[in-house]
Formats: sequence, structure tokens, C-alpha cells
Amino acid sequence: MATTRVVIIGAVALGPKTACRIKRLRPDFHVTMVDQDEYISYGGCGIPYYISGDVSDVSELMSTSFHMLRNPQFFEKAKGVKVLTRTRAESIDRKAKTVRIRDLNTGQEDDLPYDYLVLATGSVANRPPIPGLDHPRVTSVSNLHEAVAVKEKIAQGEVDKAVIVGAGAIGCEMAEALSDLWGVETALVEIAPQVLPGVLDTSLARMVRKHLEEHDVAVHLGETVREVAAPAEGDGPLVVRTDHRELEADLVITAVGVRPSGELARNAGLAVSPRGGILVNQRLQTSDPFIYAGGDCIEVMHQITGRHFHFPQGSLANRQGRVIGTNICGGSARFPGSVGTFAVKIFDLAVATAGLTRKAAREEGFDPLFVLLVQADRAHFYPTQDLMYLAAVVDRRTRRVLGIQGVSHNGDALVGRVNAVAAIMAARGTVEDLSNLEVAYSPPFASAMDIVNALGNTAENTLDGLNRPLDPEVFEDLFFHGQDDRILCLDVRGPQNAAPFVARFGDRWINIPQETLEERLDQVPRDKQLVLICNSGVRSYEALLQLRKAGITNALNLQGGVAAIKKSGIVDLSGE
Amino acid sequence: MATTRVVIIGAVALGPKTACRIKRLRPDFHVTMVDQDEYISYGGCGIPYYISGDVSDVSELMSTSFHMLRNPQFFEKAKGVKVLTRTRAESIDRKAKTVRIRDLNTGQEDDLPYDYLVLATGSVANRPPIPGLDHPRVTSVSNLHEAVAVKEKIAQGEVDKAVIVGAGAIGCEMAEALSDLWGVETALVEIAPQVLPGVLDTSLARMVRKHLEEHDVAVHLGETVREVAAPAEGDGPLVVRTDHRELEADLVITAVGVRPSGELARNAGLAVSPRGGILVNQRLQTSDPFIYAGGDCIEVMHQITGRHFHFPQGSLANRQGRVIGTNICGGSARFPGSVGTFAVKIFDLAVATAGLTRKAAREEGFDPLFVLLVQADRAHFYPTQDLMYLAAVVDRRTRRVLGIQGVSHNGDALVGRVNAVAAIMAARGTVEDLSNLEVAYSPPFASAMDIVNALGNTAENTLDGLNRPLDPEVFEDLFFHGQDDRILCLDVRGPQNAAPFVARFGDRWINIPQETLEERLDQVPRDKQLVLICNSGVRSYEALLQLRKAGITNALNLQGGVAAIKKSGIVDLSGE
Repeated sequence: MATTRVVIIGAVALGPKTACRIKRLRPDFHVTMVDQDEYISYGGCGIPYYISGDVSDVSELMSTSFHMLRNPQFFEKAKGVKVLTRTRAESIDRKAKTVRIRDLNTGQEDDLPYDYLVLATGSVANRPPIPGLDHPRVTSVSNLHEAVAVKEKIAQGEVDKAVIVGAGAIGCEMAEALSDLWGVETALVEIAPQVLPGVLDTSLARMVRKHLEEHDVAVHLGETVREVAAPAEGDGPLVVRTDHRELEADLVITAVGVRPSGELARNAGLAVSPRGGILVNQRLQTSDPFIYAGGDCIEVMHQITGRHFHFPQGSLANRQGRVIGTNICGGSARFPGSVGTFAVKIFDLAVATAGLTRKAAREEGFDPLFVLLVQADRAHFYPTQDLMYLAAVVDRRTRRVLGIQGVSHNGDALVGRVNAVAAIMAARGTVEDLSNLEVAYSPPFASAMDIVNALGNTAENTLDGLNRPLDPEVFEDLFFHGQDDRILCLDVRGPQNAAPFVARFGDRWINIPQETLEERLDQVPRDKQLVLICNSGVRSYEALLQLRKAGITNALNLQGGVAAIKKSGIVDLSGE
Repeated sequence: MATTRVVIIGAVALGPKTACRIKRLRPDFHVTMVDQDEYISYGGCGIPYYISGDVSDVSELMSTSFHMLRNPQFFEKAKGVKVLTRTRAESIDRKAKTVRIRDLNTGQEDDLPYDYLVLATGSVANRPPIPGLDHPRVTSVSNLHEAVAVKEKIAQGEVDKAVIVGAGAIGCEMAEALSDLWGVETALVEIAPQVLPGVLDTSLARMVRKHLEEHDVAVHLGETVREVAAPAEGDGPLVVRTDHRELEADLVITAVGVRPSGELARNAGLAVSPRGGILVNQRLQTSDPFIYAGGDCIEVMHQITGRHFHFPQGSLANRQGRVIGTNICGGSARFPGSVGTFAVKIFDLAVATAGLTRKAAREEGFDPLFVLLVQADRAHFYPTQDLMYLAAVVDRRTRRVLGIQGVSHNGDALVGRVNAVAAIMAARGTVEDLSNLEVAYSPPFASAMDIVNALGNTAENTLDGLNRPLDPEVFEDLFFHGQDDRILCLDVRGPQNAAPFVARFGDRWINIPQETLEERLDQVPRDKQLVLICNSGVRSYEALLQLRKAGITNALNLQGGVAAIKKSGIVDLSGE
């Protein structure tokens, strides 16, 4: 039998992983990787850390954990994989089972025969239709060339001011990279009314926005960039014109998402989604069983919605690469899909999520409830404890957990909890499963009633009609911007905590500590819309039930309490 | 209808949680908590941190997160729960539905009628049958009285030397508490041949032992305490005699486990296990449907073995308390059991586990495989990355994940991963589920191929016969203590890493870097039992496959590589 030939188009993340897995299982297979770039097998997700200086040399992003450069020679010698760089795959002849390749240095074309073909063509950065984006000081940071160029500009002192278009993960990471170490005056412009749209709901997005602003990033939300104008003189800053303002910038970075590179597949007649993502089955085969695809160029099954979505993540690419390698070697591995786990560090705040936001859940036809909890991330008596802000999106009808999202200054503590909840979401877990989720308990790491369990309990209490939560931003609208003078805050904390609020808001903010509420029920106004408030939403829940027992049933409980409205900048009492 | 009366026996953890849940759901129910102690509702798990000084005042262990003391007045005023302290439940009359109680101050007895009874009688510290344990300077630390007494002794300078009997979680935590801040010369004596028996397998237990010793704790394993002898003169130290040595001690702490307090239940004719744990259904009802039980006094269903086990954890007690409260109020909540998640911090090392050890799995009739992986806990190029030591126990027949165990200096990062794996174990996950476990990826928090996924891959490779792992301690036996001169280490790292080992072990340790192995196959001895070695076990796996391709099939791969044998103290080359 002739040697089996595998051709892999694309040599970042999925490509190398697939190649290595194949060579481990079947050292006799002939594996060729083709990439149009000369940089291969790099950690693209590390680009912001390279630009910030956390990663000092670009070669670290291209090295193994044992400091070997993952260049073509490495793949040849250590892995037995042939690599053709600066070589573009032009087209696929599925009948002949060949790939037409073109050497970008010499222009020479060739046909590469395959028994199995792997498409690892990745994604390309979206380029918004804004005049002026072709200026050389406007760039995305979607590959190492751009990253190196940006860092060079900054390191040479050419960038005093920068504008980042798009406040998704990359935009936020870049804001930190530019402003934290390099001191670049950075503005973030986002068309959506919040940062991290699609990832966070408003309550938590507000907290991230405040954190960015506290680190001197100017955040302009709900603004559209209309034009990037070249400087009047050659050396002056560019002018970024939005529908609200003009911003000067020595550098403009666009970070408005990526789209799958499915052209090659589409041209070859393979099934591709309207978005351009290659469609695959759980074995990661395309509509041609001899052609596999994975990584940023495909769509994966969303385990909550049951529908395809595009979720470009280096982690998925790596796991998929192994599945493809196994299957090409005759195995039977599958990639089950994704619940969309996500993490990003923004200055010293971590954001982690999985599943759907409330907004997305609504659009998908669920009847979502959003529950926000603020609690210590470990035993409240343990010295290093810090507040964690964690929210769940659950379906009122089925009680399924649809999403989890949180922010925390202890990133590992947050990410770990999100991962555990993601695991139960993939298994179609309900709020009862969240209440019972088994968290390893020890005071340095968790609470006896851990925040994830308490979140499940709160969701259950709300579904059962016991709790009546009010979102922080709705509270802001009602209390600060509303005209309704029937809104009255009943602060059930101790007098010391409540005093500055009572001083500031006068008779709109009254204080009756929860443990005295039973005796002072006659002091609770019955003609007002009461908002019950404590530090976190826990004691105010208790108060809500006490009021209900007394026949006062219209009170609402401020979710996350004062901790949440402070963290999101809704209220800031320096006197406290 | 008359008011429903609930009596709860025991006012720590489960009792208060049950009481509060009931009062929230049914404020009209009459709830009475009875406890023989005057200290109630305290965080017993915080005792080591109180003794160490991390928690400065004992009242912090008895306070809410908003600094209110959880005393009887608090329960009365804030929660509407009646509490009788210093009151012992003597017996239950199930027919009359009354509890005979006795006021420990006055001696007066009374019958307390109930509609529902909740047993939260907790556990008692085991007292090993050792002569001399009744000396006043010998104590356990299972309640606040003992904790306060121990801290007082230490704070007053009465303790220069201490012996702790038992190297389980409490023993190890106490070793840190005594030696770290207070500088007490501490010895840990354990009857089993390892620390944390039942929780860790040998490979990781060795690492914990080394860590304790590096922090000046003397660790004596496989030793039995025969006697604690009073000092010859009144003020001198006690003498702890083991079967191997004599140790002086101003304080002896016994920490040899606890057993469920099931006497009251047994005397009332309720079903109790031979170990003394009260047996309950998933609704947490005892064999009498009007009597519920939870917390340290019951046995729970182990979700891996399907059998009852005793797993005293404050976290389980809290979750169970809510379930009981819900059910007493007419709801239908269940406690699904436990996979035994566990965490402990020992100096600056975290240990976290879930499920079964290899040893336990074998005893339960599984055919377990133990897989150890050492890998960075986040992107290897990210500055704060550190090695994590993570192991899985999987069943060879069914490929189920039976256990996960790890040690790490980033506790949150480890605990988070163990919790996520615990979630899939509870759902009967396999190694394929571990390979596909969705971990939120971002370089500051995870690797693109995260350690948990890589662990699943390694397990799969081993089950499929591709990898042939050798445990660090078996390697130690073979290479250091064995007489077999056919054992040869083939170090496939770069020459710089290998040099000190080659220098020390001469022709028993040869170096051929993995990327040159293909060309230097003729230098590989074929008459030896080869042990392939790299830093972590990854490159040596690659080498194993290369050798197999060349017809050398008997090589073994040192699991965890040099990182593991260094971490466990098997080899220490200061020259490196």
C-alpha cells in the first residue's frame, strides 16, 4: 500500500496540532503543512502581552514550553512534518485530490496530492467600512507582522495617543497593553452601548467600563467611527471622527471581530455557512469526507442553543486538531461542541463567562432570568478574601442554566468557577445542579456555601417567587434618572454603613437594620415603591421576606446591593 | 391548624442553615435549635487559621460576612429562630414526637414536642487507644473550646515543641499553624506510609511531604504512637514514644479523623451504618420520614462508587441544610451525593482532589490507571505561569474518570480545575470528556491545550497503549534502590539540562535530545530497560513513539519527568 499523504493548509494552532497527532499515531504517514506566512505555529492570543511587554520577545510566542523555536526545521526534525512556508493554497481539486499551491517567493505553482486534506485556514480581521482605514498608522493586531510593527512604533516613541475601535476582548486587552506599561493616552470607541458586547450583560459590563476608566482609558460607548482623517501636516496625529467627537491618534487599532476564512472551501464546493464558516460534523469532517476542517475557519455546535456559531479560540483549535488527527488515523474521536467559555484579563480585573447573556438568550427564544450575586470568593473570615461579582442567566421555563458571567480581581478563582459551571451547562444542568455543584471546600479557596451554590439558590428563590431582584442599572434609571418620587430606598444595613447614603439622599433613603425590622415595621412606608438595599443583596432578601410576612409585597431587592452599584460607578460616596 | 414545630438538634453549620431556610419559606413555622455547647454556628474549618493567627479573633469564626455575631440573640431577632444552648438532647420519643432535653446548667429536663425533627449532631474526634492521651497537654482541635485553649497556650509561650498525631488535612493545617507564625518546632507522626492518606496517591503525597519538610516540619511516616508519657518533673515536655523514636512535646495534638455522632439516632431506632453514620435518602430523610438528618452525622452517596461514605465537610452540611429546609416546608429538593471534592492549603502549596485515589479505586474493584502530568498552569509564555502537578485516576475497562488530584502553588488555579473535573465525574465522564473539557482560554489563565485536557489526552494515549508511563516512586525504586543494572535513563532534553544528571549518574544516564533522536538511533542501547526522561514527560512521550517506530518497544516514560522527581525530592542536583 502506498504511503498515506495528508496535506494541511494553515500552520497555526490547529494545523501543527493535527500534524503532530498524526505523526504520533502513524509515523509512516506523510504530512505536509502549507502556510502563506513565514511565521507559523505562534500563539496569536499572546499578541497583546507581547505588545504590552509582558512577553519580551516575539520568539516566545513561537516557542515550545521547553524553549525550542517551532519553526519549519523543528517540525521537520522533531516531528517529521514537512512545512512549506510562504506558500499559498490557491484551490482544491477534490476529484483529483490535489491542492494547487503557489510559492509566494518564486511565483511557481504546483499540485500537491493528498489522501486527506485538513483546512486550517483560520480567520481574517473584520475591516469596518470607514474612510481612511488604509492609512499606514491604522492597523489590526491579528498577526505577528502587525504586532511587531505596532510594538516597534510604540517602542520608538512614535505613539503618544491611540484610539482603539472596538471594545471586545482584543480591544480591551490592547487598551491595557498600550496604556499600562507604555503610558499611551488611549481611547476605546465602541458602537454598542457597552464594553464586551455579546459576552457580558449590562450590569457587569458597567463594572468593566469603570475599571478601564480608573486606569485612564477613555471609553466612548454607543459611538460610531465615521472617518479616520490623515493629519494636515505629515507628522501630526490622525483624527478619528465619531458621531459624537473627534479624537487625535498617532495610532489607530481596529479590533471589531474576525470572520472565518472559508473562501477556499466554498470555492471547492464544500458546505459553508452564510457567515463563511466551514460546516463540519462531530468528527470534524466537511461535506467531503476526505477533507477535515477545524479552528477559526469552522463553525461549531453551541451546546446551549443547538445551533452553529463561530467561536475562534486557540483552545478549541488545539482540541479539534487532536480530534482530526485521531480520525485521519482511523480512530473515532469527536468534538462535542462548545458552550462558549471565555476569559479576559483587563488590567487587574478578570472577566470570565460561558453560555448566553440574557440578551442573547432572549434572542434565542428563551425566557431568561438574570441573577447577580456579590459574595466573598473564599471564606469571609480568610484574610485574602475579596468580593466576586457573579451572575447567572437561567431559563424560567425549564430552569436550565443558560449562562454564567463574572468579574473578579482573583482571576483564577473566577475562571475556575466559570469552568465548573460550564461543565454542568454542557450537560444541560438546571439551577438545582448549580445549587448542588460540588466545590472543593477549604477556607483559603471557597466558602462553606460557595458563591456558585449561593447563585443557584438565589436563582431558585427568584424562580419560585420568593426573591424579587432589581438590576443595578434599572435601579439607577428609577432612582437617579426617574421622575417617580414614590421610589424609596430602604437600607437594611447597620447605621454606620447607611449613614452616608441617608445624608446624601435624605428622605429618599431610609435606614432600618434588618435585625430590627420586625420591631419597626410601623416605620416602613406603605405608599411607596420600596427598594431594599444591603451590601450584597443577601440581608435585603431576608428583609424582603419579612416585609412580605407583614403584608408589604411590592418591595424589590437590589441585586448585588451597594457593592454592585459602587463597583459599576452608579454611586460613589467618598464620605463612606 | 396548629403551628408546625421543628426541632433541630445541633446548632453548627447544618442546623442554622436549615433553621434559616425554614423561616424564609415558612415564617409561621416554629423553629427551635438545641445545642449542648454555648458556642454555636461557628466555622469549624477556620480553627487552624484562628490558631495560626490568620484569623485574629475567635468571634470572626462566629460572625456573618457583615460582622454580626451569630449568637442566640441574632438568631432570635434577625431570623426568628429560638436557640437553646447548653442544652443536651438526651433521647427521642418517636411515637410521642418529643425530644427529651436537659439543661446542662440547671440539670432540668423537659420534653420538646416536634412535628419535624432535624438531626445535626455532627461528629466527634477519634481518640486513638494510646496510653497517656488524657494528659491536659494532649488535645484535639475539633471545637472552639479546644482551639481557644491551644492558642492561649501558644500565645503565652508555653509551647516550644509540638507533636501532631495524624497527617491528614487537619494535621497538616495544624503543622503550618504551629510552625509558620509561632515558630513551634513541630513533628508530624502518621501511621500510614504517606501524608494525606486516602486523599492522594504516593506520587503527589511525596511532594507534599517534601514541602512540609522544607518548612521545618519533621515528618515521620509509617510510625505508630505507642505512648504519651508525662514529664518526669512537672514542667518538662511530654515524651511521645513511637515504634521508631521518642519525641519531646509541650503540646500533643491528635488529628486522626472524626466519626459521625449517630448514638441519638441509633438509640431512637433509626437506621445507622456500622460506622455510626445516620442513613438518609436523597431527600435527607432518615428511616423515620418525620426525622431528617444532615451534616457530619450522616453518610452520603459516593457518586463514583455508588456506596455510602462518611464525608464530613462544612460545605456539604450547608447545602444539605437548605435541602432539608426546603423539604420540611413541603418542597421537593434532593441532595445528589458527592464525589468527595477536597482542598487543603499547606504552607504555600495547595492540594485539591476529587473522586478516588488509585489505591481506593483498586479496593473498590476498578482497574485503575494513574496518569500524572506536569504542565504550566497558564500559557507557558505568560510571566506568572507556574508548574502544576495534576494526576487522574481512570478505569481501564470503562475509561471513566474515577479521580483527580493535584498540587500547585496557585491554589485557586488548581481548585478550579479540580471542581470542573469533579462536575464531569459526577456525570460519569470518561477520558474523552476530560480531553474535551471546555476551559475558558486566555493566556493569563489557561493554556491553549490546558493541563486538564492534556491530562485526558495522556490518559487516552496510555489506555490506547501508545504511552507507557512509569511512576516517579517506582522509578526511584528501580533506579536508586534497585539492583538491576539494566535500567538506563535516556534523557531527551537539551544537553544543558541533562549535563548535571549525566555527570552524576555516569553511564546510567545518557543524553540524546529528542529532536536528534531520529538520527542517533544507533546510539540507543537495545539490551537495556530504557527509562525515557524529559522535564515533564511530554518530549519523552514523543521519544517513546520514535523508539517504537525503530523497533525498540520496551522503553518506559517517566511520568512528570524531572519536574516530578525534583518536586518530590527523589533527586536533588544542586549543580543544576
